[in-house]
Amino acid sequence: MIVVLKKNATEADLHTLSEEIEKRGYQVHLSRGVERTLVGCIGAPEKDKDLLADQFAAFPFVEDVVRILKPYKIVNREFQPERSQIRIGNVVVGGDALVIMAGPCSVESREQLLETAHGAKAAGAHILRGGAFKPSTSPYSFHGLGEEGLKLLAEARAATGLPIITEVMDTRDVELVARYADCLQVGTRNMANFSLLRELGEVRKPVMLKRGMSATLEEWLQAAEYIASRGNYEIILCERGIRTFEPYTRNTFDISAIPACRELSHLPIVADPSHATGKRTLVPAVVKAAIAAGADGVMVEVHSRPERALKDGPQALTLIEFAQLMRDLEPFAAAAGRPLKQGEAETE
Amino acid sequence: MIVVLKKNATEADLHTLSEEIEKRGYQVHLSRGVERTLVGCIGAPEKDKDLLADQFAAFPFVEDVVRILKPYKIVNREFQPERSQIRIGNVVVGGDALVIMAGPCSVESREQLLETAHGAKAAGAHILRGGAFKPSTSPYSFHGLGEEGLKLLAEARAATGLPIITEVMDTRDVELVARYADCLQVGTRNMANFSLLRELGEVRKPVMLKRGMSATLEEWLQAAEYIASRGNYEIILCERGIRTFEPYTRNTFDISAIPACRELSHLPIVADPSHATGKRTLVPAVVKAAIAAGADGVMVEVHSRPERALKDGPQALTLIEFAQLMRDLEPFAAAAGRPLKQGEAETE
Amino acid sequence: MIVVLKKNATEADLHTLSEEIEKRGYQVHLSRGVERTLVGCIGAPEKDKDLLADQFAAFPFVEDVVRILKPYKIVNREFQPERSQIRIGNVVVGGDALVIMAGPCSVESREQLLETAHGAKAAGAHILRGGAFKPSTSPYSFHGLGEEGLKLLAEARAATGLPIITEVMDTRDVELVARYADCLQVGTRNMANFSLLRELGEVRKPVMLKRGMSATLEEWLQAAEYIASRGNYEIILCERGIRTFEPYTRNTFDISAIPACRELSHLPIVADPSHATGKRTLVPAVVKAAIAAGADGVMVEVHSRPERALKDGPQALTLIEFAQLMRDLEPFAAAAGRPLKQGEAETE
Amino acid sequence: MIVVLKKNATEADLHTLSEEIEKRGYQVHLSRGVERTLVGCIGAPEKDKDLLADQFAAFPFVEDVVRILKPYKIVNREFQPERSQIRIGNVVVGGDALVIMAGPCSVESREQLLETAHGAKAAGAHILRGGAFKPSTSPYSFHGLGEEGLKLLAEARAATGLPIITEVMDTRDVELVARYADCLQVGTRNMANFSLLRELGEVRKPVMLKRGMSATLEEWLQAAEYIASRGNYEIILCERGIRTFEPYTRNTFDISAIPACRELSHLPIVADPSHATGKRTLVPAVVKAAIAAGADGVMVEVHSRPERALKDGPQALTLIEFAQLMRDLEPFAAAAGRPLKQGEAETE
Repeated sequence: MIVVLKKNATEADLHTLSEEIEKRGYQVHLSRGVERTLVGCIGAPEKDKDLLADQFAAFPFVEDVVRILKPYKIVNREFQPERSQIRIGNVVVGGDALVIMAGPCSVESREQLLETAHGAKAAGAHILRGGAFKPSTSPYSFHGLGEEGLKLLAEARAATGLPIITEVMDTRDVELVARYADCLQVGTRNMANFSLLRELGEVRKPVMLKRGMSATLEEWLQAAEYIASRGNYEIILCERGIRTFEPYTRNTFDISAIPACRELSHLPIVADPSHATGKRTLVPAVVKAAIAAGADGVMVEVHSRPERALKDGPQALTLIEFAQLMRDLEPFAAAAGRPLKQGEAETE
Repeated sequence: MIVVLKKNATEADLHTLSEEIEKRGYQVHLSRGVERTLVGCIGAPEKDKDLLADQFAAFPFVEDVVRILKPYKIVNREFQPERSQIRIGNVVVGGDALVIMAGPCSVESREQLLETAHGAKAAGAHILRGGAFKPSTSPYSFHGLGEEGLKLLAEARAATGLPIITEVMDTRDVELVARYADCLQVGTRNMANFSLLRELGEVRKPVMLKRGMSATLEEWLQAAEYIASRGNYEIILCERGIRTFEPYTRNTFDISAIPACRELSHLPIVADPSHATGKRTLVPAVVKAAIAAGADGVMVEVHSRPERALKDGPQALTLIEFAQLMRDLEPFAAAAGRPLKQGEAETE
Repeated sequence: MIVVLKKNATEADLHTLSEEIEKRGYQVHLSRGVERTLVGCIGAPEKDKDLLADQFAAFPFVEDVVRILKPYKIVNREFQPERSQIRIGNVVVGGDALVIMAGPCSVESREQLLETAHGAKAAGAHILRGGAFKPSTSPYSFHGLGEEGLKLLAEARAATGLPIITEVMDTRDVELVARYADCLQVGTRNMANFSLLRELGEVRKPVMLKRGMSATLEEWLQAAEYIASRGNYEIILCERGIRTFEPYTRNTFDISAIPACRELSHLPIVADPSHATGKRTLVPAVVKAAIAAGADGVMVEVHSRPERALKDGPQALTLIEFAQLMRDLEPFAAAAGRPLKQGEAETE
Repeated sequence: MIVVLKKNATEADLHTLSEEIEKRGYQVHLSRGVERTLVGCIGAPEKDKDLLADQFAAFPFVEDVVRILKPYKIVNREFQPERSQIRIGNVVVGGDALVIMAGPCSVESREQLLETAHGAKAAGAHILRGGAFKPSTSPYSFHGLGEEGLKLLAEARAATGLPIITEVMDTRDVELVARYADCLQVGTRNMANFSLLRELGEVRKPVMLKRGMSATLEEWLQAAEYIASRGNYEIILCERGIRTFEPYTRNTFDISAIPACRELSHLPIVADPSHATGKRTLVPAVVKAAIAAGADGVMVEVHSRPERALKDGPQALTLIEFAQLMRDLEPFAAAAGRPLKQGEAETE
């Protein structure tokens, strides 16, 4: 950590700061430039750096505090160079094969879910998605079927063999959702719900952590660190678009986040082009792009009858469109050296 | 609600849509322009419009669905033209007098809190703020003293007579926090934590709802509507800056949000320049600006020793700086026609 | 165009508006909803709609004016369903084959340019890029060699056979640059330099229009319309990232813009991952993604010695890295059904 | 400047970098932390730092380059602690008195301009604004009367005694506009039109530089530095809102930019709430806020008949509204210690 003193800082100021550093047991490293004096603080443990940075910055003679290292550790690629593989049921995320998660935005009924699940499976999906607890901007909209929805998901899993992923929104529901789901999803609005993240750190199920719509990569990885710091290392990142000034799409899918997360972290990363674009016609192009950019998989909204969907119909693919997309993906998956069938890589 | 058909939509498409509208019991209103046909859907109740808009937009022959009315009702100024007044202890927010909330970011110790509370009171603050449960981007940072912090706040209230406001982050803590606090605060990261909002709708204490750092005014007012829709109408809005590309300040304080919220809603609105700017030197100017723009009050971080603060020291004013600010505010409060002393307006 | 009246608008207000519409020769179409009255204005020509919308919105009894149609015409896909093909020298952009533009950010010296040009050509590039006039945030930085740079580009074209593309920043330089270049580039900072756009509308050379870093798709297409409205239809769009809150990358590459522009316009679209990411390590992934998403080509910064570059070295690929990228692209180009060699599609 | 080496950088890498620094004549300052080695480069002149930073960052063993000092010099408050005063005709911007610039968005006709100018003057405005050359998103909209508009402005000046400010958009028009105007305005879309800025550096008239809608404070001050670096120090900054995700206002007025610019620079700063909000009803609140925050003046759009305006009618105040605003401003101007009448401070 480097503390930049203001131009008019005095020797007494420098002395005050040096004492602060040394009495905490860290080393001072002084560098006098032509226009500014820099004070390095060496040896502070990662967990104390946020506090130190704030406290040093609060001195009136300090202009800036510059952090050198990334503020996350367990999920940092520096600390584990090989990429993590996370198992959801019998499916591996982050292995050679791509993972396709598909299903409706919300579980609405037994018929809707089973029809969509069978269709998704037939087209080649590996994991079934579907919301039982749904965040909704309006208090008057559909909020999901709750536990009834979880039971339907379990039934669809039994019927198709597909593992299931579903969102949890409330610390009080973590245990319940974990009982049914193969993977728990944290939605974009809850990425910085730290109580929820801590609770998920105690669970022994994998967690898919969507990026907050206004979160930087660093904040997103710190959110993952929350979960990991409590002992649950089974974390999958999911880029789903960020909020920008562009109104044509619901969010702006940050394609660079995929290679960037691979540089910065060993966690697998998947893409959610449905929520990113909010427009069915744009989904296939962004799915292909995500795979080309190195994503370990994608999550796609599929609905047997989008115009009857209780939520997010405009972004859902029909089963026919999804099957077509799966066929179109094949050459891109091959180009990326990632088979679309689980287990294929090993057996070849 | 207006449904815009694609240029190449057929009469059969128009028929399909009209049937969908009519079988739900609403009226169709057709408008054929030179290049597009518009279909008005008249008579749908507010609570069904989100779903309808999504379902209509999911038809492949629909280009766009345009909503005409605001998607919130109870908090909408159209439904209650006179402005709401919310009582926190013996203090009225939204009345003639301005309300100054001051205190440390976090409750750190008995000494720190009492010293700051007495100082804030002496300078003219009306409400004491302080966090017992603190959101923190890093899992390794200070997260607050929890219930111990709430007890210290209650002690400070007893010692100074100032009502207290403090944040609640977890649905499981709502009852606990409501037992101690005079007003419960929802932080920016939880503005769209809908489980928490619903829970706060059941509480009989006022709630201060901070704007989400990436929330539009409409989403913010819908979040308030969540609380109101459960029966708690005691809601105060708090503008605290939004996330933009500008790195000099921690957030960008949206000054226009103050008159805009006054146009759109009857709820009181206060400003938090400390979190918005993140820089102590900028706080006084933004406090004055917020009052000039029509805010009903401000929340300011004050710390007896900022360079020892366990969180957000760089943005906290010292007690001396705060007392100076209170003196400097007087002419601006007078210009705005808003006394700085509670009860003053009535007695004059 | 639909004019939404305020809730409390009177019949007299409605009459005033109707008269305004009719005396301009357009038709009024009235729709009375439960809570709002809507007034359609039918028959106004595209070119008058901006003015009308502003004038109607200026009436105090008007709540909102909703535009239904896109505010661009010549570049709109509705008016020309088949995609445009633009010829730069002997290279076709928007045809079957992908187009790879490569070269240094700035032309710095004869040696640098020729070495890079020969290397790029050997690796398979089709067009040579290089800046003679360079925008630079600092007045003290390198601003390009000017006409000397243009001459070197012409020499590199003669030596390699690659057509050249280079930026023009000043209306006074349009003629000069057009004399040397095969394609004129408008940079992100000049996308809304309307004087420059108009000037380029008079030129008989193709123009590559980069997206403004804070421009919506609609504004970008309107900028293209500026050029087209003066008679130059030879326009190529170039997505180069938009400004967001994310600091890890220089800009956020908007991958959805590629399929979106293909929906909205018939103009070819290429991608510039170098400026979007600002980081050499991220460029290859975003190049592949852009091609998978449907881009007609990419522009990549390549420098024979990045650590000696006078501008933007950190984002430039070395010649070795570029050659590797070209090999890695082959399966993705094949997956997209777009040959990497010009003329290949026709001859097969 | 501090160069951060990657974790796995070798002693040979360090040697390469040190040599690069020393052979340029600068000093190396080494700091070995626990996890990273930092290399300070001491003594490089400001004008070379951008290039150096880029070149160092281009080495594959370099993780990051951290700049310590602000990249602008002449306009930096460090280099001139006392605030600048700029004279526009007989009006001083940046002195004790506030400066009110008012007038229509565009000069449309003799009648419109003179009526508005007389009304603005009567209400207390000090400077007349009005566009003769107008940027417009659509190529089909009104673009201003050109030189005819400049002549009408000159006539209005003669008739009212108010100095005039008007925009210049094209390097070729600088001389022409400077012949008529008392102050030349650079619009938001041209803030980074570096050719135009350089040209304005040669003019002997004051320049008002609006902030680019996606420009950081640092980029804005660098744009001012462009003008200053050519010898024209008569620069006024104008905050006019930045582009964010919020659609309710046209832009988001960055109120913190006012005290921030006062910290960072000695240049006067004024506010343009009309373009920031785009809504007439929000303008008065933001005008008051800007003055409370320390602005040296404001620019307000006023039109004798907004519903007939050829541009931006919805944001223009009527003459009656403007006169009311001027009366309402008085107590706020007094609170800020800034007289609303020029010369008043001196005479008292």
